[in-house]
Amino acid sequence: MVTAEIVSIGNEILIGKTLNTNAQWLAKRMTSIGLEIRRITTVGDDLEEISSIIREALKRKPRFIITTGGLGPTFDDKTLEGIAKALEIKLETNEEALKMVEAKYEQYVKEGLMERAELTPHRVKMATLPEGAKPLPNPVGTAPGVLIEVKDTVIIALPGVPQEMKAIFEESILPLLRKESKNLIFYEAELEVRGIVESEIAPLIDEVMHDNPYVYIKSHPRGGERVSKIILHFSTTASESTTAQNRVGKAIVQLSEMIKKKGGEIKVPK
Amino acid sequence: MVTAEIVSIGNEILIGKTLNTNAQWLAKRMTSIGLEIRRITTVGDDLEEISSIIREALKRKPRFIITTGGLGPTFDDKTLEGIAKALEIKLETNEEALKMVEAKYEQYVKEGLMERAELTPHRVKMATLPEGAKPLPNPVGTAPGVLIEVKDTVIIALPGVPQEMKAIFEESILPLLRKESKNLIFYEAELEVRGIVESEIAPLIDEVMHDNPYVYIKSHPRGGERVSKIILHFSTTASESTTAQNRVGKAIVQLSEMIKKKGGEIKVPK
Repeated sequence: MVTAEIVSIGNEILIGKTLNTNAQWLAKRMTSIGLEIRRITTVGDDLEEISSIIREALKRKPRFIITTGGLGPTFDDKTLEGIAKALEIKLETNEEALKMVEAKYEQYVKEGLMERAELTPHRVKMATLPEGAKPLPNPVGTAPGVLIEVKDTVIIALPGVPQEMKAIFEESILPLLRKESKNLIFYEAELEVRGIVESEIAPLIDEVMHDNPYVYIKSHPRGGERVSKIILHFSTTASESTTAQNRVGKAIVQLSEMIKKKGGEIKVPK
Repeated sequence: MVTAEIVSIGNEILIGKTLNTNAQWLAKRMTSIGLEIRRITTVGDDLEEISSIIREALKRKPRFIITTGGLGPTFDDKTLEGIAKALEIKLETNEEALKMVEAKYEQYVKEGLMERAELTPHRVKMATLPEGAKPLPNPVGTAPGVLIEVKDTVIIALPGVPQEMKAIFEESILPLLRKESKNLIFYEAELEVRGIVESEIAPLIDEVMHDNPYVYIKSHPRGGERVSKIILHFSTTASESTTAQNRVGKAIVQLSEMIKKKGGEIKVPK
């Protein structure tokens, strides 16, 4: 499988102010088209931390490293500087990116949102990319996304504003990922089980996973204290959706019957 | 400041099925009592991945490493095995933990939730801890939390079920963290700004942060395309709450006046 890591950059996540919904969105979207997310890391708006995580991730050789956050005009938007430092390359004004940023401000002036479109240093910053990087158009905001190829890994830097992150992903990244993942399909299904505790289901899962080597089964205890409600999550990745569905279906039937024999009750969640 | 890392363990996060609310809860709670979270990492239910992240985190020498997930009875609950592997120590049945687990099942039988409290291998697994580890009582579930001291770092393993994670944290971890963080206070406040774009505020933030070296200011653009609404987040950590409030208040007044001069409008969010 094609592997990827997600790197979230932002103090607001480390202080618990912001829930990392960007990472979940990316993980779900990328998993659904057959990629395997190996790791999700959050670091702060700190040059050393950013360059460290990029260096570490590159050593693990994922096919893709997707970063979010830190592309804007303020002092603490340090993602591109961190990537350049990790790769030991320079930052330079990227002409293509500068045109994108310039066009945005001219448009904002035209729409009466601001008076002057002049390229202040804080605006030029958003077009200051690592050498050899390719800017990706931002359909809904100002700072372009950035793509850099490093040997066998593609680093993609996306903004932290969710709408901007998603728009650049859908427009510029998705086609690229789909091509690489060879249209693999991730298929998942859930069962809800009551009347049996997790430690009783554990040996049954062992047996069913042994008989169904391509299906991954994970149990999630739910509800409060002493409510023995468990969600069983089945998943597989295959090149055909019928293969994937059949695999999961077979495992669900086998495990359901074993659970019923032990006195458990099965529900298919809506 | 006392530093910490959070390590979330679970495939459900990597496939985007589960939003990592545990990490946010821990980050917020720990920041509020004056700790500095340096990194949040999510890895899958994989022995190599878990032992790697523990080894890597230990090298960065945080005072605390808090893990969540992977303490239950199923095959893919591998956190303790991963920690033992990272530390190159053995797993052993911990008598204190075994008593905790046994008492839980006896209680479940008494309450009519199940018929037999026998200690099956999957149940003994929850009391199989790295050598020298200390089990932490789980007030609302079965698997105990685990505390292991390694030189200058304390590793604390908590369950992934949010209620259980929170209950063990509040009961056993919070007193420990409070003592170490010397009752530091994290103070934050927000301003909402309209009618000015982020690149115009950026140089003003630079100036105010220069004049207020203990206050951190971060701008968060909000709203959809072309809505120039920006949330400004001010924060500081101090030993006295009045010091913290005064610092933030001074920075808010200075920045607000600069923004108004540029034509921006200020609101204090409720």
